[in-house]
Amino acid sequence: MVFSLLVSVIALIFAGYLAKYVLQQGSGTVEMQQIAAAIREGAEAFLKRQYRTIGLMTLGLAVLMFILYGFLKDWDTSVKMTFAFVLGAMCSALSGYIGMYISIRANVRTANAARTSLGQALVIALRGGAVSGVTVVALSLLGVGGLYYLYGGMSDPQKVPFLIVGYGFGASFVALFAQLGGGIYTKAADVGADLVGKVEAGIPEDDPRNPAVVADLVGDNVGDCAGRGADLFESTAAENIGAMILGVALYPTFGIQGIMFPLVARALGLIASIIGIMTVRGVEDEDPMAALNRGYYVATGLATVGFFLATWQMLGGYWFWFFMAGLTGIITSLLFVYITEYYTEHRYRPVQSIAESSQTGPATNIITGFAVGLECTALPTLIISVALMFSYYCGIWSGVTDAQGHPIGGLYGTALATMGMLATCGYILAMDTFGPITDNAGGIIEMSQSDEEVRKKTDRLDAVGNTTKALTKGYAIGSAALAAFLLFSAYMDEVTALTGQVFNVVNLAKIHVFIGGLLGAMLVFLFSALAIRAVGRAAYYVINEVRRQFRENAGIMRGEMKPDYARCVDIVTAGALREMVLPGLLAVGMPIAVGLILRAEAVAALLMVGTITGILLATLMNNGGGAWDNAKKYIESGIYGGKGSETHKAAVVGDTVGDPFKDTAGPSLHVLIKLLSTITLVMAPLFI
Amino acid sequence: MVFSLLVSVIALIFAGYLAKYVLQQGSGTVEMQQIAAAIREGAEAFLKRQYRTIGLMTLGLAVLMFILYGFLKDWDTSVKMTFAFVLGAMCSALSGYIGMYISIRANVRTANAARTSLGQALVIALRGGAVSGVTVVALSLLGVGGLYYLYGGMSDPQKVPFLIVGYGFGASFVALFAQLGGGIYTKAADVGADLVGKVEAGIPEDDPRNPAVVADLVGDNVGDCAGRGADLFESTAAENIGAMILGVALYPTFGIQGIMFPLVARALGLIASIIGIMTVRGVEDEDPMAALNRGYYVATGLATVGFFLATWQMLGGYWFWFFMAGLTGIITSLLFVYITEYYTEHRYRPVQSIAESSQTGPATNIITGFAVGLECTALPTLIISVALMFSYYCGIWSGVTDAQGHPIGGLYGTALATMGMLATCGYILAMDTFGPITDNAGGIIEMSQSDEEVRKKTDRLDAVGNTTKALTKGYAIGSAALAAFLLFSAYMDEVTALTGQVFNVVNLAKIHVFIGGLLGAMLVFLFSALAIRAVGRAAYYVINEVRRQFRENAGIMRGEMKPDYARCVDIVTAGALREMVLPGLLAVGMPIAVGLILRAEAVAALLMVGTITGILLATLMNNGGGAWDNAKKYIESGIYGGKGSETHKAAVVGDTVGDPFKDTAGPSLHVLIKLLSTITLVMAPLFI
Repeated sequence: MVFSLLVSVIALIFAGYLAKYVLQQGSGTVEMQQIAAAIREGAEAFLKRQYRTIGLMTLGLAVLMFILYGFLKDWDTSVKMTFAFVLGAMCSALSGYIGMYISIRANVRTANAARTSLGQALVIALRGGAVSGVTVVALSLLGVGGLYYLYGGMSDPQKVPFLIVGYGFGASFVALFAQLGGGIYTKAADVGADLVGKVEAGIPEDDPRNPAVVADLVGDNVGDCAGRGADLFESTAAENIGAMILGVALYPTFGIQGIMFPLVARALGLIASIIGIMTVRGVEDEDPMAALNRGYYVATGLATVGFFLATWQMLGGYWFWFFMAGLTGIITSLLFVYITEYYTEHRYRPVQSIAESSQTGPATNIITGFAVGLECTALPTLIISVALMFSYYCGIWSGVTDAQGHPIGGLYGTALATMGMLATCGYILAMDTFGPITDNAGGIIEMSQSDEEVRKKTDRLDAVGNTTKALTKGYAIGSAALAAFLLFSAYMDEVTALTGQVFNVVNLAKIHVFIGGLLGAMLVFLFSALAIRAVGRAAYYVINEVRRQFRENAGIMRGEMKPDYARCVDIVTAGALREMVLPGLLAVGMPIAVGLILRAEAVAALLMVGTITGILLATLMNNGGGAWDNAKKYIESGIYGGKGSETHKAAVVGDTVGDPFKDTAGPSLHVLIKLLSTITLVMAPLFI
Repeated sequence: MVFSLLVSVIALIFAGYLAKYVLQQGSGTVEMQQIAAAIREGAEAFLKRQYRTIGLMTLGLAVLMFILYGFLKDWDTSVKMTFAFVLGAMCSALSGYIGMYISIRANVRTANAARTSLGQALVIALRGGAVSGVTVVALSLLGVGGLYYLYGGMSDPQKVPFLIVGYGFGASFVALFAQLGGGIYTKAADVGADLVGKVEAGIPEDDPRNPAVVADLVGDNVGDCAGRGADLFESTAAENIGAMILGVALYPTFGIQGIMFPLVARALGLIASIIGIMTVRGVEDEDPMAALNRGYYVATGLATVGFFLATWQMLGGYWFWFFMAGLTGIITSLLFVYITEYYTEHRYRPVQSIAESSQTGPATNIITGFAVGLECTALPTLIISVALMFSYYCGIWSGVTDAQGHPIGGLYGTALATMGMLATCGYILAMDTFGPITDNAGGIIEMSQSDEEVRKKTDRLDAVGNTTKALTKGYAIGSAALAAFLLFSAYMDEVTALTGQVFNVVNLAKIHVFIGGLLGAMLVFLFSALAIRAVGRAAYYVINEVRRQFRENAGIMRGEMKPDYARCVDIVTAGALREMVLPGLLAVGMPIAVGLILRAEAVAALLMVGTITGILLATLMNNGGGAWDNAKKYIESGIYGGKGSETHKAAVVGDTVGDPFKDTAGPSLHVLIKLLSTITLVMAPLFI
């Protein structure tokens, strides 16, 4: 306990050191600083308004929860549950804010460093990203551990984990809106800027004459950075809580060690990630991806050692098979990274086949890309199946039994696999936030009309950033899939604890349970439809505004007048926030409605089938979108006629289609899946 | 028993009368007859080769089943099971063949009639389609009823239904390959002919100079006609058998009446369909769709009366609520037709929104269309949920109980809803086959360079045909969804009968069951990927062949030489048959593999979650594809710049993307869903 709290405090101090390091770097020319200031203002304005909206909804839900728990259970539980919810929501918002605070300052410093050294730029971007990665993991650890301690977990270890679920729900509630709002914002600005700039006005990407260009750069920060940060904050928090609840079942064997184990394992993983981040040194002539991969391998290796130590020390004679389960998770995360690379990098068949089929026009490009998206769900599903099964049997083989001699370690085995997968979460998140920072750096260089040489350097970093963003999404969905089974079980344990009757059957052969499952799958489809539609609508506001500015102020296109960037930012902000409400309410409302009408078992089916469908659809959208994007980039490298050819035009269509898939609907589905788990955990008293 | 066999024989005679009526019509000019002959030859050649391939696979599987059942059960069961399988496969193939035999002769006669009277052309096309519709339903009734009688069902009514499941499996096995092969053929020829003809050579659609044009016309017959015929043959057969198995559970209450009821209800529905077909009279100045709708309402009304009589006479004092359940099914089928119309007709918001977004290019057209596809899964899912739930409770409220007084009529209620939905199947199928006949008629008129006036008439019929094809797909997926729950229950009854232990729990909370569900959803995604990919590959063969003919024979483009239509037909045939094998084997192999490794309960989860995912994905693809198609047609009517504008070009991209969705992957998914049910029923002895 003390150890994990200590580690998280040290990690936060370390994040502060990283932040200081980044802020000490030079921030370039006056022109660059002006652009960076515009991005900063826009991002902060968005976050401020978004947090106000989310805050109001959180408040409303908190009051509801307070009343609900007060009347259905008791007021003591009610206070603890509600406080945990509010704290989770606040920590989630805070970690999103801190990550973005640094990334909108690291962007211009990375751009400035790129003017002299690629290696130095890489280090700044990664450390900027690491502020976010380390903060997220440390805050989630501190929150869960601190609440456990505060609620008297050391004296009543079996009951307290159930009180902390509110923290996970708060985190996923904020994460849903952060990811939805940010995802809608970033793609609406992107699509809007492209359609009206590139297509209608015929000016290049990131051209300073385009009034929407700042909004586009802001979007990278609020979507990828604040959004994904909240997403993975939620993952680690929910997984910690789920594993602690499962640890309760093993209390007779392991005592409090079994409940504490997730926190210790997470703390060791955090140390491994920090060391991995610090080992990354940019080498001038090398592929920047190689440097990032080296750091990742260091982090993975150290995490494995940490896992070994933790299981060996804390799980006594049962350690070997539990260590194997954890190792399964670590290997799964590596495999997910490889598979995502295979499906989204131009060196392999999938992206090449999309590029090839672009020769016969946009229709064949779309068909092939969609087929790739459908196909790429197969391997991850198989890996998850094997990992779940194997880690479950590891738990069985560990030899932990109940009083009657039945093996009961299986679920804890899957929990360890999830912990293994999430062990290097801090490093992965640092790589992810690296993406928007380098993207922004490239945009700043482009807009400040710097040298061709510098631009080439930032382009290289930007390309690496695209890859790391794709990898993180694969990783996020993989860990969500692995964690899902854990969270189902936690829900069932919770209902068992509430009713006093063993609830361990979700019988799809019962008609209302089957209907629950059917509605769960439908929720995933409808939610995706609303998220994609929202991007289209918000993009429409941008297009109209840009058209208006061009029309009313002819000086903009001649480059004599500065366009009104701030107004564009305002309009996307308002549009994205308005459009996030409907899909968000659907995600929160439908499980509650089904639970009230069809009760606990049907909700479990909704959760499970919704999760299965969500994993597949999110994988389709993430990888399909990534493959389209890179097929376009592959053609731009000179294949099949290169930039400007008919083939390239066809590939641009695919890229545009993929944008809302991979940056709005796909990532929002990750959060939806986890929200379904935490919402059922928290609302369980309503469904019984 | 006697009644239903009698009705099916009379219906077959009636189909013969319709066929004779169609064949007596004039078949037009020499030129038209030549084109029709080329289509006929191509279609027959394809079917011959396809049936040889399918025949060999059927034979292999039959030997396997024979050995399996012989060793695991007894040789008497083995002989009966295998014979039923082979008979089911043969009847399915036969009904596909007969339907196509008439449709490739009705096409030219419809074209000829259109030269004088639109009304007469409508009647010929519908009656041509009705040959297929009536034959399919009658043969399925005759097969199931005949086998039941032959296997001694009158003396041992409780055991025999389980022996007939082989018939359903044979039917769905053939249907899968018929729909896959036909679906790949039709779209490969279509996409291939379009890409190389319209895009590369710049000649209009259905231009006789295009060597792939005959293959395209052949495709309509083998895909929509033979494929959909096999699909719905399978639906009615599987549903009859499933309902009979459920009837066994109610044997103590209803005796043999409960088991016979599905056959009688089906026979009455067939009579209603026949009368509906005969009432359709073409009125010259009216929308042809109105005439078809009138016939549909007549059929629906009569089917309701028939259902009332059957429940009243056969289900004694329990009749009222069972009649209500059947009525639920009939209303569900009407609602499905309305929803499909809403999402695919240009009068409503979805298609209009796609057309509107085409103004900003192909990318926004695709994004909007995809969002519509995702969205349109919501209402059908809700309707299915309500219909399942309500009909289940109708069964409970009916008051049928077991010896201990527990209500047991619920499942039989859902079975009655399915029967209600499928009651007008004959009429729906006639409307469906109407589609390829009018499509072909239009092509023949185009190729034989007839008057503008005549072309307008066939265009009107063709547009109606597109609508009816879309409606049938919605209907087919709706009935598959409703029947699914019935077939799950039949599978569980079967396992119960085999093991002697009650099997009524599919517990998703068990890890291997959850993995079964995950793999079921994955199967649906991977199968769709392979089906879509197959179209692309087969289309590539066509493109190469057409390019070769243009290159080697310059006289073709000048209109001096006739292209080698037959070679194109040959090449698509070989390509489609080769490409159907991989997805087909996946569909058959995966449930068996999962069953062998993870056993009976996991297979049930695979079946259920696979069905849920399949319903949603098929709905997305069918309606999305239909909406894209009609958005293009809407623009062609003069909106947003009309034909030739940039907006139209963008809409053409969406239409092409939608083609393999709505005509290959979507319809193949219907069959996949039902194949999963029948394969698990038949292979159950392997999984326990």
